[in-house]
Amino acid sequence: MVPFPQRKSVLRLNELAEEPIDLTDEENFTPKRVDALVSEALGMKLFYAGERVTNTTMEALESLAEEANVLSKMRSMQAGEVMNFIEGCESENRKVLHTAMRDFFEQPSSAEQAKEASHLAYQELEKLTQFLKDLEVQELFSDMVQVGIGGSDLGPRAVYHALKAYKKEDRRAHFFSNVDPDDGADVFHELDLKKTLFVVVSKSGSTLETLTNEEFVRERLVKAGLDPKNHIISVTGKGSPMDDPSRYLASFYIWDFIGGRYSVTSMVGGVILAFALGMDRFLDFLQGASRMDKVALRQDMRSNLPLISALLHVWNRNFLGYATAAVIPYSQALFRFPAHLQQLTMESNGKRVDKKGRAVDFDTSPVIWGEPGTNGQHSFFQMIHQGTSVIPVEFIGFLESQYKEDTLFQGTTCQEKLLSNLFAQSLALATGQKCTNPNKHFPGNRSNRILLARKLDPHTMGMLLSYYENSVAFQGFLWDINSFDQEGVQLGKKLAVQFTELFAEKRGKKGAGGKSFPLGQAYFRHVLEGQDE
Amino acid sequence: MVPFPQRKSVLRLNELAEEPIDLTDEENFTPKRVDALVSEALGMKLFYAGERVTNTTMEALESLAEEANVLSKMRSMQAGEVMNFIEGCESENRKVLHTAMRDFFEQPSSAEQAKEASHLAYQELEKLTQFLKDLEVQELFSDMVQVGIGGSDLGPRAVYHALKAYKKEDRRAHFFSNVDPDDGADVFHELDLKKTLFVVVSKSGSTLETLTNEEFVRERLVKAGLDPKNHIISVTGKGSPMDDPSRYLASFYIWDFIGGRYSVTSMVGGVILAFALGMDRFLDFLQGASRMDKVALRQDMRSNLPLISALLHVWNRNFLGYATAAVIPYSQALFRFPAHLQQLTMESNGKRVDKKGRAVDFDTSPVIWGEPGTNGQHSFFQMIHQGTSVIPVEFIGFLESQYKEDTLFQGTTCQEKLLSNLFAQSLALATGQKCTNPNKHFPGNRSNRILLARKLDPHTMGMLLSYYENSVAFQGFLWDINSFDQEGVQLGKKLAVQFTELFAEKRGKKGAGGKSFPLGQAYFRHVLEGQDE
Repeated sequence: MVPFPQRKSVLRLNELAEEPIDLTDEENFTPKRVDALVSEALGMKLFYAGERVTNTTMEALESLAEEANVLSKMRSMQAGEVMNFIEGCESENRKVLHTAMRDFFEQPSSAEQAKEASHLAYQELEKLTQFLKDLEVQELFSDMVQVGIGGSDLGPRAVYHALKAYKKEDRRAHFFSNVDPDDGADVFHELDLKKTLFVVVSKSGSTLETLTNEEFVRERLVKAGLDPKNHIISVTGKGSPMDDPSRYLASFYIWDFIGGRYSVTSMVGGVILAFALGMDRFLDFLQGASRMDKVALRQDMRSNLPLISALLHVWNRNFLGYATAAVIPYSQALFRFPAHLQQLTMESNGKRVDKKGRAVDFDTSPVIWGEPGTNGQHSFFQMIHQGTSVIPVEFIGFLESQYKEDTLFQGTTCQEKLLSNLFAQSLALATGQKCTNPNKHFPGNRSNRILLARKLDPHTMGMLLSYYENSVAFQGFLWDINSFDQEGVQLGKKLAVQFTELFAEKRGKKGAGGKSFPLGQAYFRHVLEGQDE
Repeated sequence: MVPFPQRKSVLRLNELAEEPIDLTDEENFTPKRVDALVSEALGMKLFYAGERVTNTTMEALESLAEEANVLSKMRSMQAGEVMNFIEGCESENRKVLHTAMRDFFEQPSSAEQAKEASHLAYQELEKLTQFLKDLEVQELFSDMVQVGIGGSDLGPRAVYHALKAYKKEDRRAHFFSNVDPDDGADVFHELDLKKTLFVVVSKSGSTLETLTNEEFVRERLVKAGLDPKNHIISVTGKGSPMDDPSRYLASFYIWDFIGGRYSVTSMVGGVILAFALGMDRFLDFLQGASRMDKVALRQDMRSNLPLISALLHVWNRNFLGYATAAVIPYSQALFRFPAHLQQLTMESNGKRVDKKGRAVDFDTSPVIWGEPGTNGQHSFFQMIHQGTSVIPVEFIGFLESQYKEDTLFQGTTCQEKLLSNLFAQSLALATGQKCTNPNKHFPGNRSNRILLARKLDPHTMGMLLSYYENSVAFQGFLWDINSFDQEGVQLGKKLAVQFTELFAEKRGKKGAGGKSFPLGQAYFRHVLEGQDE
């Protein structure tokens, strides 16, 4: 494949980017434009009149998608071909089949690999259904604590908070992720251990933080006179050190074709979400995700929401040169969702070599960040409106609230105020406002789009999750990078082990960490100086 | 004052930035370098060997500080001169005296304006002390809910979570900020209203979200058969609509010289923090902040921690061209602190005109973002190590945990593992690692620094807060911009009102919102289409 910068459509897009449409011109940004630049799928609408694109730009972006074969790659991915590899280098060489974890509904894939993965996933789901039924009968547990980090934490946590309005009344979920002992202490202070089930999640069964935190849990269970075996289950790869019936009440499986950051709909998210929300709602969530996976396969690009999102990302990043992208959900329940998207996007596409192993000479993933609105308006929006860098924004909004416990004040409900603010910000950023006071001048042309759905329920949350997962995959396909590995985390891990050796030596353990690690020693000396004796 | 780009030191720094030190060269990054590039104040250490600076760079940065008179400006600010203004334009024209809110300890300011502000602040503190004593005697309230947004929410919330380990056992704090009705519903489901005191915070007494949410609270108190007057207090400006003894159990005051994002140590943070932590601990927190304020006045720049932080920020932003900066606390308790710093920094310095009202032709604030470590390592660190953009990182670490409830596993404690990871990441980012597999190659030279303190206690938290507040002010002084206003939030507010008119009209209220707002109508039509009938 021709490298990204040399593609014909890229040259064309570079030309278009020299003079992108001016959204502050009233003749450009019209009601007609709003209606022309909106796409819809499954009742979810994506408004992109606030982006600096025209129909011509969209056509050029679609040519880019064609040149990069992204729809065919999406089909290959969902069919279970090996997508996680770098040509000519040692690499993971794996299939990428998170979409199979939820392909139990309409038009399931007929590809062998995908069917097989779905079959495996369904078996786990059935195991889980039975396990939860047994729990229900025994009424033993009211609380579940997820012990995991990264992909085993951020996604399930974000989705749990997003759907807390739908949880079972007598069930609570907690998350213990950080190796910081204060994280564990804080979580444990809230628990009645007798009624608590822990689910330890690690694909390899060897994640240092998670093993450490599991030990933290076991110690406290024993101290409380409880048998850890009756209070801990695991989610792990078959045959891993954590697949051990002598130590766990049950084990649920994941496979090497499920990346951590793509694992929410596997057992990684499944156990705790189904426990807290009930299996029916978890299935609604899976179905929403699966339906959006099918949208990602649509040949008609203008209704392929994840693809449009990816194309706009690439336009903003590579052609307009924006270094970050904010995701601003106008929904407090989504307050942890940007942190999940940060991992999903930046760990997938924060890469410096393409799939042929060549160092790229163009920009890959921007920094993804965000906080809920309207809160953000009273915080960093000052800079989005008047800073020196353009920060593209993706707003997420819902027509209805979850609890429907609203208040009418000064003629409108809270939900109406929330939506009014979302649309107002979108318009204000795009159109700006001239003012003779330079400090009250708004330059406008601040790219943004709006993703609008009816209500944040399990089904919609599944759609949202899949929208972003598939958008991220499309971005990787467009750049021809591998969005499914994470070699960049290895060096830090290695050095951390050397540092822990310094602590262990101080404790009396023999080792040679210090002598061979002079830079580590240099910092370590300061640690010792400052420490309590 | 000469505009930033034309200053002599800026020209010199531009030269130095052409060939910044290569940290991947073992002869450059030595143990000696670690010891040379560390500054200390009040037992807090700032390590910046991981930044792409040498002594020569630091000297040039110090010349920049001198040219921009930043120390004299800091003295003026803390003395109560009018600092919040833009020359030649209508602007707020206010003093900036958040440092006076805590200047009750060593070497208080002798400047008239500052003394007067401190006196006012101390009166409120005494009022609060008495109020809390009365509450204690009556044993009426176990829970307090802060109703406020932006500066009235993020800072107090971040500090509460940071210091939750020190809270009184029978006290809990909650935060209700978003106009999203699901935010309120979620908070209320946790409360026993009889035992709950609400503190509504708005300087002007007219923040739309906060007034709406206050109404949300009042309705529910009435519905529960309680008298709102006995359950709501206010923090507001004297004489504001919220300074009304007929509606509030008590009112505590703030003044126009306290910006929202700088208000944590005023009554904005004071009421809920002193309620939850106790007055003694709140005073410890204030004292920590005040001591760091004095550090910000130090003429010896190499021990002026907030100034060094600001200079490194400017070096990374304006000379090395980095668009974002991450703050990564290796402390789960600080999980909301980056959101506070996001507001503090981006609302203060996300500006496009200088103090003479000239549009600037250089970059002001970067995007500030972050999540706790080690969690981030399993998420976006991939991109920090191997992405195409350099993302400077400020790590925050502590030698000791808060709860001291730790577990020894594989030879080290959790706290030791946490610290090991922090130092390991810092080194790995700076030095990188060569590898023949291009996908396992780490380019290094990824700027970072480490702020290290003994323990996250109230005193240290005060120091940390002030470190950032003063760093942000210094950055503004260096760029000669006004870090104390936020005109960029006005346009969105105005348009939101127009949008709410559309909803109100639909409800039957007469108005002309629609006709004069065709773009609003264009979006609104989609809202109506999608809505539940």
